[in-house]
Amino acid sequence: MPGDDRPPGARGVTGPLTAAELSQVDALWRAANYLTVGQIYLLDNPLLTEPLRAEHVKPRLLGHWGTSPGLNFLYAHFNRAIVTHDLNAMFVTGPGHGGPALFANTWLEGSYPEVAPEVSQDAEGMRELFRQFSFPGGVPSHVAPQVPGSIHEGGELGYSLAHAFGAAFDNPDLLVACVVGDGEAETGPLATSWHATKFLDPGRDGVVLPILHLNGYKIANPTILARLPHEELDELLRGYGYAPHYVEGHEPAVMHQAMAAVLDEVLGEIGRIKEAGSGERPRWPMIVLRSPKGWTGPSEVDGLPVEGTWRAHQVPLPAVREHPHHLRSLEQWLRSYRPEELFDADGRPKAAVTALMPKAERRMGANPHANGGLLLRPLRLPALPAVPVASPGATETEPTRVLGQYLRAVFEDNAEQRNFRLFGPDETASNRLDAVYEATGKQWQAAIEPVDEHLSRDGRVLEVLSEHLCQGWLEGYLLTGRHGLFSCYEAFVHIVDSMVNQHIKWLRVHRQLPWRRPVASLNYLLTSHVWRQDHNGFSHQDPGFIDHVANKSSEVVRVYLPPDTNTLLAVAEHCLRSRDYVNVIVAGKNEAPNWLGEEEAGLHCARGAGIWEWASSHTDREPDVVLACAGDAPTMEILAAVALLREHLPDLAVRVVNVVDLMRLQPDTEHPHGMSDREFDALFTQDRPVIFAYHGYPWLIHRLCYRRANHAELHVRGYKEHGTTTTPFDMLVLNDMDRYQLVIDVIDRVPGLVRTAGGVRQEMAEMRARHQRWIREHGEDLPEVREWTWPGAGARAGGSHGAH
Amino acid sequence: MPGDDRPPGARGVTGPLTAAELSQVDALWRAANYLTVGQIYLLDNPLLTEPLRAEHVKPRLLGHWGTSPGLNFLYAHFNRAIVTHDLNAMFVTGPGHGGPALFANTWLEGSYPEVAPEVSQDAEGMRELFRQFSFPGGVPSHVAPQVPGSIHEGGELGYSLAHAFGAAFDNPDLLVACVVGDGEAETGPLATSWHATKFLDPGRDGVVLPILHLNGYKIANPTILARLPHEELDELLRGYGYAPHYVEGHEPAVMHQAMAAVLDEVLGEIGRIKEAGSGERPRWPMIVLRSPKGWTGPSEVDGLPVEGTWRAHQVPLPAVREHPHHLRSLEQWLRSYRPEELFDADGRPKAAVTALMPKAERRMGANPHANGGLLLRPLRLPALPAVPVASPGATETEPTRVLGQYLRAVFEDNAEQRNFRLFGPDETASNRLDAVYEATGKQWQAAIEPVDEHLSRDGRVLEVLSEHLCQGWLEGYLLTGRHGLFSCYEAFVHIVDSMVNQHIKWLRVHRQLPWRRPVASLNYLLTSHVWRQDHNGFSHQDPGFIDHVANKSSEVVRVYLPPDTNTLLAVAEHCLRSRDYVNVIVAGKNEAPNWLGEEEAGLHCARGAGIWEWASSHTDREPDVVLACAGDAPTMEILAAVALLREHLPDLAVRVVNVVDLMRLQPDTEHPHGMSDREFDALFTQDRPVIFAYHGYPWLIHRLCYRRANHAELHVRGYKEHGTTTTPFDMLVLNDMDRYQLVIDVIDRVPGLVRTAGGVRQEMAEMRARHQRWIREHGEDLPEVREWTWPGAGARAGGSHGAH
Repeated sequence: MPGDDRPPGARGVTGPLTAAELSQVDALWRAANYLTVGQIYLLDNPLLTEPLRAEHVKPRLLGHWGTSPGLNFLYAHFNRAIVTHDLNAMFVTGPGHGGPALFANTWLEGSYPEVAPEVSQDAEGMRELFRQFSFPGGVPSHVAPQVPGSIHEGGELGYSLAHAFGAAFDNPDLLVACVVGDGEAETGPLATSWHATKFLDPGRDGVVLPILHLNGYKIANPTILARLPHEELDELLRGYGYAPHYVEGHEPAVMHQAMAAVLDEVLGEIGRIKEAGSGERPRWPMIVLRSPKGWTGPSEVDGLPVEGTWRAHQVPLPAVREHPHHLRSLEQWLRSYRPEELFDADGRPKAAVTALMPKAERRMGANPHANGGLLLRPLRLPALPAVPVASPGATETEPTRVLGQYLRAVFEDNAEQRNFRLFGPDETASNRLDAVYEATGKQWQAAIEPVDEHLSRDGRVLEVLSEHLCQGWLEGYLLTGRHGLFSCYEAFVHIVDSMVNQHIKWLRVHRQLPWRRPVASLNYLLTSHVWRQDHNGFSHQDPGFIDHVANKSSEVVRVYLPPDTNTLLAVAEHCLRSRDYVNVIVAGKNEAPNWLGEEEAGLHCARGAGIWEWASSHTDREPDVVLACAGDAPTMEILAAVALLREHLPDLAVRVVNVVDLMRLQPDTEHPHGMSDREFDALFTQDRPVIFAYHGYPWLIHRLCYRRANHAELHVRGYKEHGTTTTPFDMLVLNDMDRYQLVIDVIDRVPGLVRTAGGVRQEMAEMRARHQRWIREHGEDLPEVREWTWPGAGARAGGSHGAH
Repeated sequence: MPGDDRPPGARGVTGPLTAAELSQVDALWRAANYLTVGQIYLLDNPLLTEPLRAEHVKPRLLGHWGTSPGLNFLYAHFNRAIVTHDLNAMFVTGPGHGGPALFANTWLEGSYPEVAPEVSQDAEGMRELFRQFSFPGGVPSHVAPQVPGSIHEGGELGYSLAHAFGAAFDNPDLLVACVVGDGEAETGPLATSWHATKFLDPGRDGVVLPILHLNGYKIANPTILARLPHEELDELLRGYGYAPHYVEGHEPAVMHQAMAAVLDEVLGEIGRIKEAGSGERPRWPMIVLRSPKGWTGPSEVDGLPVEGTWRAHQVPLPAVREHPHHLRSLEQWLRSYRPEELFDADGRPKAAVTALMPKAERRMGANPHANGGLLLRPLRLPALPAVPVASPGATETEPTRVLGQYLRAVFEDNAEQRNFRLFGPDETASNRLDAVYEATGKQWQAAIEPVDEHLSRDGRVLEVLSEHLCQGWLEGYLLTGRHGLFSCYEAFVHIVDSMVNQHIKWLRVHRQLPWRRPVASLNYLLTSHVWRQDHNGFSHQDPGFIDHVANKSSEVVRVYLPPDTNTLLAVAEHCLRSRDYVNVIVAGKNEAPNWLGEEEAGLHCARGAGIWEWASSHTDREPDVVLACAGDAPTMEILAAVALLREHLPDLAVRVVNVVDLMRLQPDTEHPHGMSDREFDALFTQDRPVIFAYHGYPWLIHRLCYRRANHAELHVRGYKEHGTTTTPFDMLVLNDMDRYQLVIDVIDRVPGLVRTAGGVRQEMAEMRARHQRWIREHGEDLPEVREWTWPGAGARAGGSHGAH
């Protein structure tokens, strides 16, 4: 019926949408679909003002059509709901390969042209919108930082729901619509993310509304969830704790009414939950949208079905430039959206398209929560609970336990702003940060039993045995303008290697976009580290996360190895103040000597690396050897070696260098924290042997230093994958980083010493042998190791090497 | 009632167990519990033949009690069921921290003493069993390769169920009992593992029987699943596709009868499913065991509840040596198991304990499937479908597509033995291995629709959008004596970084245990690699998995970068033949020139690295410069640079070195594949500039070569985290690894050349600038790049750089 702009099947369908609204929401959807197809295919002729010719089409056809019409459908309906219900909403796009859909919608609502003026809301801007997509020098094919309103990189799948919950924490008025693709729903991280409602307070936190989008297929296969019998799917989602609402079909008008009705109903349920406020976990509503993959696209290409199959995943018409009939199909497909009804002659969206569009910050692409730096309030940082250090090594503390006291104060001082959280996989107490429980609890919305400790409905510590959830929640929390710390066993942070890759890549691009405001850094505290796995052994020993992040963009990555408690405090404070970084702090939880007082620690951390004069000898002349260290266990062992050298080789000039900020070792041309060659030489000399005891895999130090003048004289000790369930000192011996071996290294490397100090060398080798016998018999370290103290520190009660 | 050896509450309880059986299964449980506590605490006095004194107790108390009694309970009941129903069963211990429980049970059944004669089944052996546990030089605290019957490292949580399914594939007569801890159930990988029944053929595959063990607590928190309302938990498990059976309580006799009854019922259901055979997915049974954490341990310590709380997680009585009342409690606890009824005076288990013990290979610790090398049948490897190469570069092929033809033949030749599978996250076709579908399908037990392709009930390809599942299934499949290949996008294999860590650590220890027989290597094919992310861009670009594995034990890790199709085939064949390694193969899927014929390829791969004489010039004299390459894109680019040098600087003596086996670059002291310095110098010279184009992060090459004489002259190009959605050549330019830059590098590094070849340098710089302009305008690479061929190769139709 010519002139009737209602979508197919509209007659006879009743529902919450008036005829006008139905037309409007459908126009919005058609406009977004049109712009999506345009981005994948067109270089020119954006409004089809002339018949489509091969030269209007891109030479390389790249992009993902399959998921896009579903995303456009949802975005249109959320626009209507925002206007109707005055919602403060943001949109997380799980099927993030559907980048063109989000570019299309944010262009239509005007939020994208505001941050990217070259894609102005007119014909020229539309041409550029199309051209730039997946084009060299343009924008990527996935939802990425360039998409306004997004906090979620769409390239890797599985993290949407975790990001959505992270955004919702402490934002009681925010609704986070989160589209979960049925592909990504097969990933582990997504599969466990559903449980996050057990940690979300209906009163003090916001709302996550998951929309499971069953479009049936991945790249080449059906999806598991789409092929479950309805009853089983319903049980699964109810078992996850949700009340699912279903919108299923393909007839546009029917689907529009159904989606509008379900959305209104769901928003009603949410309203009742929010009204009831904090308390027991409610059964949150969610939506299941079952619609054809590549919906409204070509139903068949070259005799094979496409719409509703996996063939619609990327580019349904693959050879448009080569085959005239494909070109004709493309033109028909584009014209099926009736662009002349949607855009005026100048390419501007007509009133029919914009009628249901929210305004200003209600637009999902302009919601300030999705550009969190706009809302970021700096943390109020309390005084550091520095430990007194009358002389180096005179006291011992558990570094992370003292850090816990600091974090307790951070919680207290920011209780009102509610913008700091601590995340961990069931390890906060094990990592000895439990002082925080004096200020706040662990958030928990499930049943609480009398025997439980520190659980509370409004706790600010999040503990769940999933590093993926910890990481995903924290990313979502940070990108919406808050602060946090992830405390993790060092070995198991590898579980989130791929997630941190994506976050670093996100930050790298985000930093290049002037309209994206700086956000708080992602801070890791890696403890229960490789040298102290007394209980757990080989499976828990892996210092390689440092290597993993060191491969990434130097603009973003920082690595700190504080050698004691006060340096840990200084580093932690610095990291909590910083912006747009990924900071990795590695620190021990076991009792260990304090080397630096508060002021010295602050200065040392600011410099990042420096000579420890108090530990060096004959400082009036050039050193015979440099003993360098990075990390708490290596620092203690280097100092123990220095003490042995003082005793046995008192004439040797020993320089002790400690490195806190690992990236200082790189050249200043490679990393903003890097040292110039002059600085490096001033610490490490140009020609003296350097015995370097390092926390992690030793070759990383070589990789950072290979361009330095003195590289040939650099000898690094570190973890070499030798480990088991054993004592701390035995771990050092197994990896040749014990004090006796370090003295042997000095004797072997300092010219002439092997001749004059052969007796000392022999003695050291005998101590290593003695250790082997002792430990097999007694199951603990040599008494002289357990009770060792730095000369001048004075005797302490007990040593630093007990099992904890 | 003295003399009554039935467990508490036995009177009045009826059930499938006779009174004798009830006593026997309880005796078995008590014996295992006794041995578990003994391992955590005792150095001596194993049979409590004298009153317990402090010096009988270990100085360091390490281990996890909490989960152990539940594991012991299950192990005892499976023993009974194996005997009663003549089962062929193995046991996967998800809560693997309960290592002492598994050491206890395998000691009792005799399988452990058979492989570790020092823990003989007598008092002396028991003393050693206790002493060695978590003791320096002893055995680790977790389930590890040292535990007979295990294929599952218990240190990292979340992979038990995936391993269990991997073991069950193609083992139709095997029952894999898999205990899932409620802690690990929170992890992502475990949460999605439940869905694996959608890939398990009831006829041709074995049975996985999951036992979800709800003991309520993690280290310091309640678990999510234990705090779900019963109805919600039931919905969740039914939604995952199971029929859950519940065993809940704490009264031993009641629990024994309940467990025996449920186990009999479940085995009946399984029998009916197996009888029905292949076809639609059945609703598999599973068991939920809800029992107290630290069951039968101290109910209270120092006034605080312990049994049934998180306080029972590790060592419930922590200060036994220090506090006499803790010592007394420990003795009471140990004596509560009535060891005198369980062990004779020589420490041997009495008949009451062994009555329900399976014999020989029916013992779960002696099941040959769990020492898969015993059952390993070598793959029948067909002839390689080598591509003809009349002269270097004369033909082009898609390397992985040809590999797909080889794998098709592997499937055909091993169809009868059913011991090879291909695993991938929905990418087999995308990675162009789809020729395999001519030989086999993708296994799929859910609904199959007419539009689906290659799905079948007995397919040998497993595709699921979860790298965790692919990895876990493959590990389980390999460790039970079969073969496989995991094909994955290069960037996203980081998702399993932590899993491969654990597998490498497993293999490292497994290799040291003579009774563990060699298993097939874990083979990765990483394709859709960093240089060819034309569609996907920055999020899909990460070559760091090589760095990740290179940190691990050199006994286990191998990395191959075949430069073309025939070398890929040679490497793949080698990897499929190999044992006990983790092999990483990185290869492209896009059409690319063939450099080596079959024979040359085989020889080159056997050497691992070599001079390509045909590409070198003036080979009669020492080279002026070495152009080295590793990886397909770098090789092509180095050869393009060589062609430019021939044209512009014909007098330059250029040596081309190609590296296939990356570990060849290491010193032979560091890696079994490493080159001696003499070999290295013969390839790379001692003093000539080396321009090295490398597939991944460039500093890895420095890290491998820093000890070589010529290191100072080594200049490496590689991926530096510069990327976006763009063309292949633009990626090279962005990362300074394009042919023009490589020529500039040569001019800059060869002494004197910058003076005489300034014009060429300028011309190269202009080509880079021309590229920048061209690509912005045309969206594709320069025609001379797209159409480039190696001189002498002859013109080919089309170039190698089209977008696919």
